[in-house]
Amino acid sequence: MHMTSKTLKDVRPMGRAMTDLHISEGRFVAGPVAGAEVIDCGGGLLIPGLVEAHTHLDKTLLGLPWYRNEVGPRLVDKIENERAVKTSLGLDPALQSARQVVQTVAYGTTHIRSHVDVDTEHGLAGIEGVLATREAFAGICDIEIVAFPQSAMMARPGTVELMDEALALGADVVGGLDPCGIDRDPKGQLDAVFALAEKHGKPIDIHLHERDALGAFSMEEIVSRTRAHGMGGMVTISHAFCLGMTDRAAVAILQVALAEAGIHVATTAPASAPVPAVRELRAAGIVTGAGSDGIRDTWGPYGNGDMLERAMFVGLRNNLRRDDEVELALDICTFGGARMMGLEGYGLGIGDRADCVLLEGETLAEAVALRAPRRLVLKGGTVVAENGRATVSTP
Amino acid sequence: MHMTSKTLKDVRPMGRAMTDLHISEGRFVAGPVAGAEVIDCGGGLLIPGLVEAHTHLDKTLLGLPWYRNEVGPRLVDKIENERAVKTSLGLDPALQSARQVVQTVAYGTTHIRSHVDVDTEHGLAGIEGVLATREAFAGICDIEIVAFPQSAMMARPGTVELMDEALALGADVVGGLDPCGIDRDPKGQLDAVFALAEKHGKPIDIHLHERDALGAFSMEEIVSRTRAHGMGGMVTISHAFCLGMTDRAAVAILQVALAEAGIHVATTAPASAPVPAVRELRAAGIVTGAGSDGIRDTWGPYGNGDMLERAMFVGLRNNLRRDDEVELALDICTFGGARMMGLEGYGLGIGDRADCVLLEGETLAEAVALRAPRRLVLKGGTVVAENGRATVSTP
Ligand SMILES: [Zn+2]
Ligand SMILES: [Zn+2]
Repeated sequence: MHMTSKTLKDVRPMGRAMTDLHISEGRFVAGPVAGAEVIDCGGGLLIPGLVEAHTHLDKTLLGLPWYRNEVGPRLVDKIENERAVKTSLGLDPALQSARQVVQTVAYGTTHIRSHVDVDTEHGLAGIEGVLATREAFAGICDIEIVAFPQSAMMARPGTVELMDEALALGADVVGGLDPCGIDRDPKGQLDAVFALAEKHGKPIDIHLHERDALGAFSMEEIVSRTRAHGMGGMVTISHAFCLGMTDRAAVAILQVALAEAGIHVATTAPASAPVPAVRELRAAGIVTGAGSDGIRDTWGPYGNGDMLERAMFVGLRNNLRRDDEVELALDICTFGGARMMGLEGYGLGIGDRADCVLLEGETLAEAVALRAPRRLVLKGGTVVAENGRATVSTP
Repeated sequence: MHMTSKTLKDVRPMGRAMTDLHISEGRFVAGPVAGAEVIDCGGGLLIPGLVEAHTHLDKTLLGLPWYRNEVGPRLVDKIENERAVKTSLGLDPALQSARQVVQTVAYGTTHIRSHVDVDTEHGLAGIEGVLATREAFAGICDIEIVAFPQSAMMARPGTVELMDEALALGADVVGGLDPCGIDRDPKGQLDAVFALAEKHGKPIDIHLHERDALGAFSMEEIVSRTRAHGMGGMVTISHAFCLGMTDRAAVAILQVALAEAGIHVATTAPASAPVPAVRELRAAGIVTGAGSDGIRDTWGPYGNGDMLERAMFVGLRNNLRRDDEVELALDICTFGGARMMGLEGYGLGIGDRADCVLLEGETLAEAVALRAPRRLVLKGGTVVAENGRATVSTP
């Protein structure tokens, strides 16, 4: 791909006053560049690329015939069904992840953190598939891979070794999952997760659906290990449903502990589960990103990978109505995710990478509430989507 | 409008096997009609017209410049702000309601129940405006008007008399609102509501946001009056947040009482408030409809009037994942609302009114999860929207 210099003419960065922005060698620069391509932005809003901070690229059913969901209600039903369906449908993680990436790029996402299943039945097939997709879409969308023990870690011997291999192969982050609820061995799982992180020098992102006091217990265990390993700023807790519990005094204590330990939170703002209160997280100084979680998979039929729509879900779930509150929801889906993932050069400032989305609409709150049309998506200064369509397609 | 006979060729009613449906004089008929216009439906899904069972046509800000929401957090802040903004923006209820109806029809809604503000500051301006819209859109979309005391009933003397006038003028339903929380006089408000209903021979639809034991108390008062007045089947409780309370034993008792009294429930499935559990309502035999509530108004920026998207919200809020569960969400946004409103001839059967929506997609669950494109909307056999655009515009 050839990266030309560009001028984004008549654009309103973050909804502020109209101006021109200049791009050279993939980054925003202070002044016009001779011979730059001029793009008339017609007064549209410009935001940095949306950040999908929690999804599952390997398991979407996008592009396949409709999957009739008749799965039982327990977590174990969903996990076992999924392992079986991967085989019966012959799911190809490279193809499926590519399909989701194309759809996601069209919506304006420029960075993705994807948890990818690692288990003793399918081995590293998911990791290898998403690694291939990451390579295929280099320069179009940055993809971070979490080695994710969906089927359990300690309870399924051999999984820790597979995660070790996944990390050696190129996975970026050590995953984890409900150390009490799934593994029934919180000490074992969390010791193993932090040992893998230390061995590979990589960050951690743990799914924690455990609720109330149980989730608080696991969270405390994550906090103490984060402090002991000096991993402040490198640990994320995804979902963190226990922060949605009714005992708000207990939540306040947990939030102080997370902030002091430098632990981040990723939320998907589900309507049917308890969720962290994003205004409280912000007030406590806890870095917060958001994600779609799985979209259209064997777990459920919903989701499309649109992180502007996810900002709307964050707003609806947290009862964010005032414009400044709705802007917080968008901030979580952009800068929040970027800080959570430690992205370099994220933003619309001079020197930042020219990853950005041109939106229709008057204000940021309007863009969120109406899920404004995406006129243009740039990645490193290159157009990767126009009018809702990615310029690339599935390999 | 000239109503021609039509054949809907190659259509899948409710996702079932492909067939042809025939329309004559605005209704589905058993066999082909000579000279009928043939519409090739290409195997698309057909559902009856979506039913918007709870909205506020008079107060949307659709079509106006973006309204920056800086409103305080209390209910009274929102109510007082709205009364003031109606004047400062010079809101025209006829124009605003028409704008929402056009957008709603484009999404496939053929029936609307709208609460319309009645208060001592703006009098019957809202009612008159929506009555004008109802007339303008006759044959395009059926509109039911609830005389709604948004600013309180007993606490603002003169309101009951205005509601009486509104009902004489053509409002179809007697409204009410948090008899404890807003009026601080549950006996006074509910006696007045039921007296108006008896005088005018019209049904009742009461907003009940009151939570927990307070809402349960008001609900019991509505139940006892419904029985005393023999109004089974003619009373709806909107929101019914107390049915979302954590004391599920108390909820079960309330649900039995509602079912026995023949009281319906309308839900908007908000993500940030307690909600009735739609699976439980179904099991208890309580007729349940759904609505958008206010869309893009001074209360909040969200909402677009798409009742297929609302079915998705019902599904997300109630954790409906299996296909049969997602179909329940759609049923609430179609047949449920129709039963709640007592619509005659609603459905896709022989003799039913030809109010229907042609959707892209394989299955009903897919249509809900993806908010499937609306290829065609018929009202009484006449095309009122095509490919997401209404064939009518705002007067
Ligand atoms: Zn996840
Ligand atoms: Zn309402």
